[in-house]
Amino acid sequence: MFTISPSIYSADLLDLRNVLKGLKGFEHLHLDIDDGNFVRGISFGMDTVKGIASSTNIPLDAHLEVLNPMDYIEPLVEAGVEMICAHVEALEFPSLFLSTVHQYQKKAGLALNIKTPVAFLEPYADQLDQIIFVSCEADVEGLPFRRGVLKKVADARCLFGDKVKIWVDGGVNESNLKSVISAGADGVVLGRAIFGSAEPVLEYERLLKQGRKYQEVKDEIS
Amino acid sequence: MFTISPSIYSADLLDLRNVLKGLKGFEHLHLDIDDGNFVRGISFGMDTVKGIASSTNIPLDAHLEVLNPMDYIEPLVEAGVEMICAHVEALEFPSLFLSTVHQYQKKAGLALNIKTPVAFLEPYADQLDQIIFVSCEADVEGLPFRRGVLKKVADARCLFGDKVKIWVDGGVNESNLKSVISAGADGVVLGRAIFGSAEPVLEYERLLKQGRKYQEVKDEIS
Amino acid sequence: MFTISPSIYSADLLDLRNVLKGLKGFEHLHLDIDDGNFVRGISFGMDTVKGIASSTNIPLDAHLEVLNPMDYIEPLVEAGVEMICAHVEALEFPSLFLSTVHQYQKKAGLALNIKTPVAFLEPYADQLDQIIFVSCEADVEGLPFRRGVLKKVADARCLFGDKVKIWVDGGVNESNLKSVISAGADGVVLGRAIFGSAEPVLEYERLLKQGRKYQEVKDEIS
Amino acid sequence: MFTISPSIYSADLLDLRNVLKGLKGFEHLHLDIDDGNFVRGISFGMDTVKGIASSTNIPLDAHLEVLNPMDYIEPLVEAGVEMICAHVEALEFPSLFLSTVHQYQKKAGLALNIKTPVAFLEPYADQLDQIIFVSCEADVEGLPFRRGVLKKVADARCLFGDKVKIWVDGGVNESNLKSVISAGADGVVLGRAIFGSAEPVLEYERLLKQGRKYQEVKDEIS
Amino acid sequence: MFTISPSIYSADLLDLRNVLKGLKGFEHLHLDIDDGNFVRGISFGMDTVKGIASSTNIPLDAHLEVLNPMDYIEPLVEAGVEMICAHVEALEFPSLFLSTVHQYQKKAGLALNIKTPVAFLEPYADQLDQIIFVSCEADVEGLPFRRGVLKKVADARCLFGDKVKIWVDGGVNESNLKSVISAGADGVVLGRAIFGSAEPVLEYERLLKQGRKYQEVKDEIS
Amino acid sequence: MFTISPSIYSADLLDLRNVLKGLKGFEHLHLDIDDGNFVRGISFGMDTVKGIASSTNIPLDAHLEVLNPMDYIEPLVEAGVEMICAHVEALEFPSLFLSTVHQYQKKAGLALNIKTPVAFLEPYADQLDQIIFVSCEADVEGLPFRRGVLKKVADARCLFGDKVKIWVDGGVNESNLKSVISAGADGVVLGRAIFGSAEPVLEYERLLKQGRKYQEVKDEIS
Repeated sequence: MFTISPSIYSADLLDLRNVLKGLKGFEHLHLDIDDGNFVRGISFGMDTVKGIASSTNIPLDAHLEVLNPMDYIEPLVEAGVEMICAHVEALEFPSLFLSTVHQYQKKAGLALNIKTPVAFLEPYADQLDQIIFVSCEADVEGLPFRRGVLKKVADARCLFGDKVKIWVDGGVNESNLKSVISAGADGVVLGRAIFGSAEPVLEYERLLKQGRKYQEVKDEIS
Repeated sequence: MFTISPSIYSADLLDLRNVLKGLKGFEHLHLDIDDGNFVRGISFGMDTVKGIASSTNIPLDAHLEVLNPMDYIEPLVEAGVEMICAHVEALEFPSLFLSTVHQYQKKAGLALNIKTPVAFLEPYADQLDQIIFVSCEADVEGLPFRRGVLKKVADARCLFGDKVKIWVDGGVNESNLKSVISAGADGVVLGRAIFGSAEPVLEYERLLKQGRKYQEVKDEIS
Repeated sequence: MFTISPSIYSADLLDLRNVLKGLKGFEHLHLDIDDGNFVRGISFGMDTVKGIASSTNIPLDAHLEVLNPMDYIEPLVEAGVEMICAHVEALEFPSLFLSTVHQYQKKAGLALNIKTPVAFLEPYADQLDQIIFVSCEADVEGLPFRRGVLKKVADARCLFGDKVKIWVDGGVNESNLKSVISAGADGVVLGRAIFGSAEPVLEYERLLKQGRKYQEVKDEIS
Repeated sequence: MFTISPSIYSADLLDLRNVLKGLKGFEHLHLDIDDGNFVRGISFGMDTVKGIASSTNIPLDAHLEVLNPMDYIEPLVEAGVEMICAHVEALEFPSLFLSTVHQYQKKAGLALNIKTPVAFLEPYADQLDQIIFVSCEADVEGLPFRRGVLKKVADARCLFGDKVKIWVDGGVNESNLKSVISAGADGVVLGRAIFGSAEPVLEYERLLKQGRKYQEVKDEIS
Repeated sequence: MFTISPSIYSADLLDLRNVLKGLKGFEHLHLDIDDGNFVRGISFGMDTVKGIASSTNIPLDAHLEVLNPMDYIEPLVEAGVEMICAHVEALEFPSLFLSTVHQYQKKAGLALNIKTPVAFLEPYADQLDQIIFVSCEADVEGLPFRRGVLKKVADARCLFGDKVKIWVDGGVNESNLKSVISAGADGVVLGRAIFGSAEPVLEYERLLKQGRKYQEVKDEIS
Repeated sequence: MFTISPSIYSADLLDLRNVLKGLKGFEHLHLDIDDGNFVRGISFGMDTVKGIASSTNIPLDAHLEVLNPMDYIEPLVEAGVEMICAHVEALEFPSLFLSTVHQYQKKAGLALNIKTPVAFLEPYADQLDQIIFVSCEADVEGLPFRRGVLKKVADARCLFGDKVKIWVDGGVNESNLKSVISAGADGVVLGRAIFGSAEPVLEYERLLKQGRKYQEVKDEIS
C-alpha cells in the first residue's frame, strides 16, 4: 500500500521535541542525514537523530546523503532506525552496505541521484528492500521536481518487480503525486508539504488518502 | 579580558529554543558547524543556525569544521554571526576567507588542528582577529585535552602579540584551565563543562570568574 | 541543417588576431577550453577567449573540458559566447549547469567522453539544446577517431529526437564524415582539417557543402 | 574451449618457488596484483611477479586491481606476462591502456566490478581480447559469489560475440560453475578451489574436464 | 645581480608573435603555465609555449602552477626553456622533479605559496637553483602584494645562502620593489608593470636600473 | 644501544620460508608494507606478513607506507608485530593511531618523508616510542640517501630527548652510517646492505658492531 514518510528536516529544528509530541498516525518519519559535501547543506547529525529516536515511536527511516555512509550504520541501528538507505554513488561496495544493514535485522536500501542510470542498481536486486529515487537536482530555481524520474521509477519496477519498495523523494506535492504513483512508486518523502502546513497530522492523512486513491485507479488499469 | 564561549552543540539539541531562553550573561555563544567529513560527526547546519540566531541576543561566533568553508560565510553573516573562524587546513586561500569575512564587517579567524604547525598562520598576521587552537584530537579514549597545545598558544602569542585573540577549544575544564590561561590564551570554548551542568548560567559565571583570577595572576608575573 | 564548427585551438596560437581577421562565412567558431587535468594539455584560458570574442563576429561555442565547469559560465557569457557545453563527467549537478546557462539566454549542452554511457544524458532531455560526443580517446597512435561513437549518436538521436543538436568532435575528417552524418549527427567540430589547410575558408565551404550532400542522401533514405 | 586460470595469490606465499615447481598442465596462471586501495588487501608487487615469471613456464595473465594500471604495463611485459587486464573503473583512457598492451604484442582486457554497468565496455569492442567480470563484492560474509554477474556475462556475449574471451573471477566453485558456463563464460579464475586442495594439479584437471562437459551441453542446446 | 623576468601572460595574448618581435634587452621571459585547478584561471598550454620559444631568443623560465608538474618537464625542455620551477605543494617528490630537470642540464627551482612554511624547502637545499616566492594570494581585492613574503625571503636567504636565486612573484611594483630587494630577493617577476606600460622595453630598463640601485644600497649596508 | 632492523622486502620473495630459517641473532626484522599508492611499488600484504610471523621468532617491526594506516593495526597486532610505524602524512589523527597501537601493548611510532617538516611530529612527543625518518626520496638516480635527513635527526633528538627511538631508513650503508649515528640516530633500517650480501647474518653482526663503535665515539664527545 502507498505510504508517505514526512521528512523531519522540514520541521522547526529548534523545537523538535515539541514537534514530535504532536505527531500521530505517521507510518514513517524520514531522517535526512546530509553532510553538506555529498549534498549541499548540512542537516543534522547523530546527536539529533538519537534525540529524535528517544522522543517518538514512529518508525524511522534514514536517508544518508553523506560521503562515507558505512560510518553511520551502527549508530543508526543503535538509535533504533528501521530502514537505512545510502547513495550508490557514495558506496564503494553497495553489497557490503546492504548486508551490513541486514545483519542488524534492518531494512536496507539504495538511493540514486537524478544523474545516475538505474543500471547501477541492477546487480543488487537480491539485496534491496528499498530504493529512493531522488527526484530533484540543484537548478537555478532551487530544487524543482524533475519528471525524468518517472521513467526511472517505471524501469526499476520492471527490473525489480513488487518485492522492492520504490520511493520518490524531492519536490513531490499535490500537483505531481498522481504521476509519481502512476509510474509505479510505493511511497513518497514529503517535507514542506507536511511540515509547512498548519496541521501536519491532518495534511498527512489527507495526502495519504489521496495517494491511495491514485494507487487504486492504477491497480485497476494495469 | 579572559572570556568563555559555550558551545551550544553540547546543549539539548531537541529543545534548543527553550535552552536559549534560559541563557543570560553569556558573552559569546559558540556554533560548531561540523560536516562529518572535515571532522567526525555532523553537528547541525544553517537551518539550525538561523533558528538559533533569531532566538537569542548573545553574540554568536562560528567555528567552521567543514571541507568548504567559503560556502558558509554569506549565510552566517546573514544569520547575524559576529565572528567566523575556519580551519587553515581546509582553506585554499586563507587570505580570501579572512578578507571576505572582513568585507562584511565581521571578525575573522583561523583555526588549527593539533597536527598542524603554527607556521601556517604566520603569513596572515595582518588579517587575523582570532585564532582557535583545537586542543584535542581523536584518540582511543575519545577526545582528551592535549597539553601539546600549550606550546602552540605561547608561540602564537609571541608571534602575533596582543592584537590577536587566542582561544583554546577541546577538552578544556577546571583541571587544565589555569595552564591554558598561563600559556597565553584569551578565551576558551566550553561544551559539556557548561551545558552538562545543572545550572549552565551559574557555572558560566563561576568559571569566568575563576579564569579572570588566573589571568590576573599571570599578568602580575609577566 | 548540417554545420561545422572549426576549433580555433588548431590555428596559429601566436597570431590569433590575424587568423581571426581572415575568417569569413564560418557559422560557428569552437573554443576548446582545456585545463590539462580533466583532459590532457592546457589550451587557453579566459584572457584568450575574451581577446577572441572582441576580434570576431563569428558566433562562438565553448566546449569546457575542465574539472570545474560552473566557474566558467559567467565569464563566457560576458565574453559573448552563444553556446556552452560541459562534460557530464565533471558536473555534480548537470541540471544546475544547464539552467544557469539558460538563465543567461544562451544555448546549453552536455559533452560525453567515449567511455561514458549515453544513459547519463537521459534525465536531461528537457534541458538539452546540444550534445557533443567526443569521438576520440588517448591511444598509442594519438587521438584517432573511434567508430564506437556512431552507435552513441544513433542512440541519442533516437532518445532525444530532432530538438537536440548532436555534434561529433575528435578525429573527424573527409574519410569518416559520411558515417558520422549517417549515424545522425547535425554537426562536427573540425580542427586541423580546417586550420591545417592552406585556405581555411575555402576548405570550410568545401567540407560544409560535402556534409550537406551526405545529409540530403540520408534524409531521402529515412 | 573453456579454460581455468588458477590464482597464485591463493597459494602458500612463503613458499612460492616450491609451489611453482609442482605445477603441471596448467593452461594459465593468474596474477592478482592488488594495491589495497583500489581493492582491499595488498597481494604482492612486481618483485614477486618477476620471481614467479622466472620460475615457471605456465602462461601468465595479470589482473590489475590498482589505482594506476598504466604504471604496470611495461614491467609486466618485461616479466613475460601474456595477457593484462585492468579495471575500467580505474582507467582514464581505456583505449590507451588496451592499445599500449597491444603495442607489446600482448593480449589486453578490461575487468569490471559488480557495481559497474556493462555499457562502460561497449565503446571498446574493437580493442578487447578479454573481459574479466569480477563476480564477488565485499559483503558481511566475505566475498560470496553474486549471481547478478550471470546477466552481465550473457549481455557481454551478446554485445561482443565470440571474439572476446569472457572470464568470471570471484567465488567460483563446483556449485556455480555450471551457471557461469551456461551464461556464456569461456573461462574462470579459481583460487582456493585449486590451491586450497591437497592436490592442486589433479583438482585443476578434474574441474577443467567438468567445465568442458558443461560447455558441450551448452553448445548442443544453443 | 638583481634581475627582472617579465611575464608574457600579461601581454596581448592574441598578438604574441608581434609582441615578441618588439622585445629587446630582456634578461628573462617568464612563462606562467596555469591549469585553472592548482591556481585560478587557465593561462596557456604547451602549444603556445612552443610558439613563443620559436619566436624569441630571450631566455625563458617556466613557472608551473599545475596539479601535475612532472608531466610538463620534457615538453618544456624540448621547447627550449632554461629554468623550470614547480610548486612544492603540488609535488609528491620534489627531489625527483629537481633532478629530472637537472638531467636535462636546465636550472630547477621550487615555488611556494603564501600559506606554505619555508621549512618545506629546507630538505632540498643541495638541489635548488631557484626559489619563487609567490607574493600574492586571492583576496576580496584581487591579488594584492602581501608583505608576509618579506620574512620568507629573509629566512630563505639565511637558510640557503647566496647560491640559490630567490625571486618574488605577484603584485610587485615600484612601491614595494625596495622592500623586496632589501629582504634579500635577487629577482622579481613583473606582469602588468611591464606589459601594461606603453613602452615595455623602456619600462623594463628603468625598473631594472632602479632595482640594481636598491641592491647596491643593500649590499653597502650588510 | 644502536640497533639495525633488516628489511625482509630486500630478501628473495619467492623463498621467504627458507630465508627466515637461516636468520639468527637479528634484533629486529623490518616489514615494509607498501601499497604502491602512498609509495611507489607494492611490497606485500597481510597474507605474507602472517606467513613471516609464523615462521620466525625475530621481533618484527612494521613500517606502513599506505594510504590508510588505521586499517592495518589490528591485523598486524594479531600477526604478532612488536612495533608499528605509520606516516604522519597519511594520518588524519596521529594521536588515534598511536593510542590504538598502545592499547594493544605494542610500540607505536610515526614516520616522516623527506619533504615534511619535523614540526608535524612535535604535538605527539608524549605518545611517540619511535620515529622513522625516511632518508631517501625518488630521484632520477633511484632512491639515493639524502643528507638533509641529518638535520632532521638532530632536531628531533633535541625536541624529544632520549626517550624516543630515532631510526633512519633509506639508502643507509657503510659510507654514511657514521654521519647518521653522529646526527643522533639510535637505529637504521638496512635492506640490500644485509640481504644483498652473501652472508646476511655475518654482515648484520659486522655492521652492528661498527655502528656501536661509532655510537661510543659519539657518546664520549657529547
